[in-house]
Amino acid sequence: MSFPTDLEIAESANIQHIKNIAEKIGIDNDDLEYYGKYKAKIPLKYIDEEKIKKAKLILVTAINPTPAGEGKTTVSVGLNDGLNKIGKKSIAVLREPSLGPVFGVKGGAAGGGYAQVIPMVDINLHFTGDFAAIEKANNLLSALIDNNLQNRKHSLNIDPRTIVWKRVMDMNDRSLRQIVVGLGGSNNGITREEGFNITPASEVMAILCLSQDFEDLKTRLGNIFVGYTFDKKPIFARDLKAENAMAILLKDAIKPNLVQSLEGNPAILHGGPFANIAQGTNTIIATKTGLSLADYVVTEAGFGADLGAEKFLHIKCHYGKMKPDAYVIVATIRALRYHGGAKKGEYETPNLPFVKNGIENLKKHIENGMKFGLKPIVAINRFATDSDEEITFIKEECEKMGVKAILAEEFTKGGAGMTELAEEVVYCASNCGNDFQPLYKVEDSVEYKIETIAKEVYGAETVVFSQKAKNQLKTIYDLGFDKVPICMAKTPKSLTDDETKIGRPSNFKITVREFEFAAGAGFIIPILGDMMRMPGLPSVPAAEGMTINKEGKILGLS
Amino acid sequence: MSFPTDLEIAESANIQHIKNIAEKIGIDNDDLEYYGKYKAKIPLKYIDEEKIKKAKLILVTAINPTPAGEGKTTVSVGLNDGLNKIGKKSIAVLREPSLGPVFGVKGGAAGGGYAQVIPMVDINLHFTGDFAAIEKANNLLSALIDNNLQNRKHSLNIDPRTIVWKRVMDMNDRSLRQIVVGLGGSNNGITREEGFNITPASEVMAILCLSQDFEDLKTRLGNIFVGYTFDKKPIFARDLKAENAMAILLKDAIKPNLVQSLEGNPAILHGGPFANIAQGTNTIIATKTGLSLADYVVTEAGFGADLGAEKFLHIKCHYGKMKPDAYVIVATIRALRYHGGAKKGEYETPNLPFVKNGIENLKKHIENGMKFGLKPIVAINRFATDSDEEITFIKEECEKMGVKAILAEEFTKGGAGMTELAEEVVYCASNCGNDFQPLYKVEDSVEYKIETIAKEVYGAETVVFSQKAKNQLKTIYDLGFDKVPICMAKTPKSLTDDETKIGRPSNFKITVREFEFAAGAGFIIPILGDMMRMPGLPSVPAAEGMTINKEGKILGLS
Repeated sequence: MSFPTDLEIAESANIQHIKNIAEKIGIDNDDLEYYGKYKAKIPLKYIDEEKIKKAKLILVTAINPTPAGEGKTTVSVGLNDGLNKIGKKSIAVLREPSLGPVFGVKGGAAGGGYAQVIPMVDINLHFTGDFAAIEKANNLLSALIDNNLQNRKHSLNIDPRTIVWKRVMDMNDRSLRQIVVGLGGSNNGITREEGFNITPASEVMAILCLSQDFEDLKTRLGNIFVGYTFDKKPIFARDLKAENAMAILLKDAIKPNLVQSLEGNPAILHGGPFANIAQGTNTIIATKTGLSLADYVVTEAGFGADLGAEKFLHIKCHYGKMKPDAYVIVATIRALRYHGGAKKGEYETPNLPFVKNGIENLKKHIENGMKFGLKPIVAINRFATDSDEEITFIKEECEKMGVKAILAEEFTKGGAGMTELAEEVVYCASNCGNDFQPLYKVEDSVEYKIETIAKEVYGAETVVFSQKAKNQLKTIYDLGFDKVPICMAKTPKSLTDDETKIGRPSNFKITVREFEFAAGAGFIIPILGDMMRMPGLPSVPAAEGMTINKEGKILGLS
Repeated sequence: MSFPTDLEIAESANIQHIKNIAEKIGIDNDDLEYYGKYKAKIPLKYIDEEKIKKAKLILVTAINPTPAGEGKTTVSVGLNDGLNKIGKKSIAVLREPSLGPVFGVKGGAAGGGYAQVIPMVDINLHFTGDFAAIEKANNLLSALIDNNLQNRKHSLNIDPRTIVWKRVMDMNDRSLRQIVVGLGGSNNGITREEGFNITPASEVMAILCLSQDFEDLKTRLGNIFVGYTFDKKPIFARDLKAENAMAILLKDAIKPNLVQSLEGNPAILHGGPFANIAQGTNTIIATKTGLSLADYVVTEAGFGADLGAEKFLHIKCHYGKMKPDAYVIVATIRALRYHGGAKKGEYETPNLPFVKNGIENLKKHIENGMKFGLKPIVAINRFATDSDEEITFIKEECEKMGVKAILAEEFTKGGAGMTELAEEVVYCASNCGNDFQPLYKVEDSVEYKIETIAKEVYGAETVVFSQKAKNQLKTIYDLGFDKVPICMAKTPKSLTDDETKIGRPSNFKITVREFEFAAGAGFIIPILGDMMRMPGLPSVPAAEGMTINKEGKILGLS
């Protein structure tokens, strides 16, 4: 008998009414806003700054991942189950997945194996409507922009050629990447170039995730930069009086969503910004809600530590005024083989020489954690193909750096396979002397901030700015948008800006090709390469293989 | 002190937990799927064909409306409150409103004054996510189509020039009416003309509303006509293996939504197809659920009786195998003045001569009801500007036709202003000999069906088919799509296809300019004029005037 699919495991779970989960963490039944029996929104009033100070924040990050991912979400869900298993009051606080990719290749994004959050199908589809609300808020601004172009009477004199704000749709739909709107004559708007990004790439998503509260959300929405007038004045969403209507559309989306793990432990899923051009981590509000309701919060940040953790620490910790108390780096041995030179077809076969080479990638991420004042714990996300000698080698190498490497067996065993890691996390959160310090200050120059990340985190020798980037940098300074954190847009596959460079590259340069900025969310985006903001479907989309029968039983969504 | 706004009335209501409302109509608390405290989905298992046979269905329709509308929804909500007030077990079963127009001019669509369904803001925004789900299902099919064009390997050989399926967005956004997608090179799809309709204009919406159950939904989704191959073979959604994934996206949207009126009476809101190019009435599933849970169901159909009621009777009653037991025609005196020749600025002033002319429109709609075997009851939707002599005149004229005209004072008085109408509806539902018969059979020729509607319902002399329409008609016969009901696409403002022709025009011809067909929903759409499928925003959109404070108090949404 083969190992069951994620969907089979999820569907066979003994799922509890969400009020039971809420009760465990002290949420009054009357305060819950149910979405069916297994999902609920938590009101913002549960945020308690005093409790937040006492709770421990555990950040789960990873080495540079292979395309299959390192399993950060799975480890995070499993670690939370492990913490609960050893008697700790812990909540997993994670991102909510995007619906678009579900119908493409990847399937769901709610953990895997015996470490999942459920109800899995709902979480992967509309969930509680947050993405739909974000999409509407984004596209209302677009409609208001085009409507302003159309109406001469209340015109803001916007130059359509300068508009940077795009529409979004939560769908893998490459045909919408580059389009022309406003065709068909004078009743149909002004003809101009436009494009759709996928919803998690929306700045509205980034804003929702970085907002402290509802007022802050509204202010940030108003600060969204739209483009310029014909006489070169910047136009913001507030100039279109858009921020209140957008905030009205987000009045429920701002509230964190409570679900449960397969083991009935609490999980909050809220927000899901892209990790390439945005911060790639759940909302500040959700993280604070978790810290207010439990003694431990397990959270994660998208992609490897060079992107996800760096942004978590420099952007989210900055705006959320928070610090991690423990720092877990997830590595799979298959990825270490890859970083050590294994080619396609060789990833799944034990090979110590490859691992000996590839461990350099892990070592760099351990060093980076230490630069931030954090003591990493390595979680080896266990696969059946891992050999004992590979595991022993990794543990020994980590030990040489003063770091523990622990097997994470959540996929096959759930929380029971995570108690050793949980114990270590509990110990380290109080006793490892973690004292996070950012590598730059937001007041530093944009160039300094970028160089710091490139040199300290990536290991680059130099940073080169293209002529286009230099011109855009001048604009950023002119507009006074420079005193904010940096949100690097880089390939997750390598420590460099070249995805083919595996392991721990040295003696390389980073090229900033261009800049974008998210004036509402509050960060500058140096673009280091082609960034995908709207995925496509594969030649045989997952959608084709899905079925649902009249009893509602779904197959093929995994 | 001025009369409070709809929002003020709605927000000051003593709203009950939805479980109390559900309890009144015998829904087990465990079966409810809550969406917050005041909205819930009802599982399909409550549909009970035996109970349906015993319950009374009350159809609320109207004369040809002015742009302000005749207040069908308000009268329906009020009539339901009136029925409950006189001790009857009654449910209002209505459409859910589209979000797009809320940010344009019109504001909400959940009744008005003291006859509203609540929570008003939620109902007018995302509600329970049905529209978002429909939008996603529609756009998933679009993405699958464009993906099939892109991928040579699994190509269906679709000719992009023949694709009739469009994307949708629930937003008033004229710039998306006519667009070009797939620009930017070979990674970005095939370049082709495309456009967005507003979500309620999606065939997926029409399908959801006409489906008997989940299997039927899936079959209809598969039957959606997409376009042709280069060798002229028709392509359907099922050829793209889209129907299961689309149905998965609709697994919750298919369940009716329970809310309450200001007076705490049950209302089911479900589905909201456009009334111009679709059937303009709520789902068959919702109507059947209402009939299974109460002794009376008050429902309505969009626009005037020539569009809404005709489609309700010929399309919904056909597929739903149902018949109305009472037939209420709503008229406002301001609209009768308009039909009698009043010009802008004169609508709100008592004027008997105008009403004497304008009543011909009402009379025609009364006659039409009788043609269907139904005995109309006229509801005069009361305005402060109505004069006694106008009211008396209308009552007398109706009496001459054997029909009662009763004041509907729901806007200012709620259910208390509707007891007389409620008593009459109860009486007539059992004693007026209503015995609905369609004017055509679906097996009749398309031409016959159209001519029957045009002559019998509109009062036209002849029907003219353009050359384009004739060619398309041949296609409809060739594809075997002719044995379905007709869904006329016509201006609601006039009994003719010319919106300037008021009152009861005679001696006119109807021109079918072109045809569309909804092979999945199951109807043929003769297009008689320009049909709006994507509204625009006005020069000062309602969105600009909306505010929300940090306590979540909303102003300007009305």
